[in-house]
Amino acid sequence: MDTTIDYARYDRIRPIRWTGTALDLLDQRKLPLVVEYLTCADSDAVAAAIHALAVRGAPAIGIAAAWGVVLAARQVEASDGAAAAAALAPAMQRLNAARPTAVNLAWALARMRGALVRAGSDWREVLEHEARAIETEDLAANRRMGALGAALIAPGSGVLTHCNTGSLATAGFGTALGVIRAGVAQGRIERVFADETRPWMQGSRLTAWELQEDGIDATLIADAAASHLLKGGEVDWVVVGADRICANGDVANKIGTYQLAISARFHGRRFMVVAPASTVDMATPSGDRIEIEERDPEELLGVAGGRVAAAGIKAWNPVFDVTPAALIDAIVTEKGVVERPDEASMRALFGG
Amino acid sequence: MDTTIDYARYDRIRPIRWTGTALDLLDQRKLPLVVEYLTCADSDAVAAAIHALAVRGAPAIGIAAAWGVVLAARQVEASDGAAAAAALAPAMQRLNAARPTAVNLAWALARMRGALVRAGSDWREVLEHEARAIETEDLAANRRMGALGAALIAPGSGVLTHCNTGSLATAGFGTALGVIRAGVAQGRIERVFADETRPWMQGSRLTAWELQEDGIDATLIADAAASHLLKGGEVDWVVVGADRICANGDVANKIGTYQLAISARFHGRRFMVVAPASTVDMATPSGDRIEIEERDPEELLGVAGGRVAAAGIKAWNPVFDVTPAALIDAIVTEKGVVERPDEASMRALFGG
Repeated sequence: MDTTIDYARYDRIRPIRWTGTALDLLDQRKLPLVVEYLTCADSDAVAAAIHALAVRGAPAIGIAAAWGVVLAARQVEASDGAAAAAALAPAMQRLNAARPTAVNLAWALARMRGALVRAGSDWREVLEHEARAIETEDLAANRRMGALGAALIAPGSGVLTHCNTGSLATAGFGTALGVIRAGVAQGRIERVFADETRPWMQGSRLTAWELQEDGIDATLIADAAASHLLKGGEVDWVVVGADRICANGDVANKIGTYQLAISARFHGRRFMVVAPASTVDMATPSGDRIEIEERDPEELLGVAGGRVAAAGIKAWNPVFDVTPAALIDAIVTEKGVVERPDEASMRALFGG
Repeated sequence: MDTTIDYARYDRIRPIRWTGTALDLLDQRKLPLVVEYLTCADSDAVAAAIHALAVRGAPAIGIAAAWGVVLAARQVEASDGAAAAAALAPAMQRLNAARPTAVNLAWALARMRGALVRAGSDWREVLEHEARAIETEDLAANRRMGALGAALIAPGSGVLTHCNTGSLATAGFGTALGVIRAGVAQGRIERVFADETRPWMQGSRLTAWELQEDGIDATLIADAAASHLLKGGEVDWVVVGADRICANGDVANKIGTYQLAISARFHGRRFMVVAPASTVDMATPSGDRIEIEERDPEELLGVAGGRVAAAGIKAWNPVFDVTPAALIDAIVTEKGVVERPDEASMRALFGG
């Protein structure tokens, strides 16, 4: 907790609500026009919601999947945790397969399984406790990252962010957007710009909605306008999230992140990646080992439900790209900050 | 004319048609879903069509404006060209004000005025002859640029383009897209990628439509995916158009062009600008002197008529950016090619 940050004002959005019998997910496909929670009554509904992007953002996906395991447990009889783990394996596999790139998904499921196999006859309570712990720890981690990241930003600065890394992508507060919230709350950040983030428009739809909810003055730009903006004097830091961080500091994140990092370096602006330590994957040595998810080309051929592109044209729709560590000035996690990340500095903080 | 290029196949689209009594413009706001010509019966209708982007692309704007002057002449009585020029000045001023950045607009109007003031009682015929000359010279220039630009591209290459620089942006064939047409026709280009080009989606809507019409295999990408593409081995040249080229080789073009040039240089790919000599403005020493048009933020807040962004968010919508000459490998015009453009090499080809 940082007493310089007014959380009552800057941390009000909750995208994931466990009701005790079901998981309610703020349906991010419908924002900002409709604010509506989608009720998932079983684990396959959670997997479908993850796959369909009703819930998105690496930490939020992990939290939703953890609650999905709790829901799956309702369908299972077992005398102890080990037996339950065997019975739940198919449901957990389906949850794990819902999105291929986000390492938090596998991390959260492994953590749920770890708690489960150590449990006795109270395994149902253990599962629910573990899911709640993953969620509350994420919120605390985000507030910590917010304070650590904001401390790197000089008063009077401007920032540019990409995609949505806010409350909606996490348990609350956000990662990169949490740093921006903290920086605004502390008066360090005076100008906030957000990429609209094609094809799914997370910037226009989600980040813009969150910033409006918090009363933070912000300006949207087309993704392709970022370099023109960075050439001017209004942006000091590009601040983004991560879906996976490799042992050498390479970062997989939303398509377009890599382009921002190249441009930030070209213009002498600084580049910050903000993500929970659960995103760090010390078993993956570098970014070239990451499988890049490609989604349906149709996402690119239309917008907001309307067809835009000429009939018959092909499209290539990679969802992530890899930013090499050499273009990153700081990786901020709740465990601490790695400046100028490389294999040695990453190992110093994260071991492995 | 280049006999290695099958123009019957690769040059069939005509966006501007003078009917003898009116100007028919292929309405680019409705493509690709509806192929429909908008009939302009007077010069203010042409100015409105230019402003509203029913016709777009620097050369096409200039041609449309020239025919707009012919239409304006219908409303004017004058005994000779000089008198007609005075009477037509207000209409020409309104045409000139329809778009601020495209130098071809001012160039075409100045050329019409120049022909007019030299004309006698036959000034109406002179005007019509001049408009037709501007149009046919543009088509010939594009075919010439296509051959010159394609000659720079090695067989087996891949290209990435931005916005629409095709038949739709010109009298026909196109500038950058003309080079791509020529390169495909000659078997030099094997892979064609096109940015969708937010916010107006000229890539998805117009370039994709043209390529489909010509049976050229092509793939759309999100603007933000360009660097991820350039990192791979599929693209050798980025080929774009220009709205204005300065005396030092700096180029103003569609927002996002600058970002592509930075990324092409970062990845060791080559960067080609293709535009008619009328785009070259030797009176503007460098790109920092160019007024960058900003359009309605609403264009960024929705797509295809639907609202996307959260209510209340601000947006910044610059339509052009400036690519410094240092990032450009070749500027191709119908007068010749300037490799590694700078003040001296530009002056050698364009004088001034």
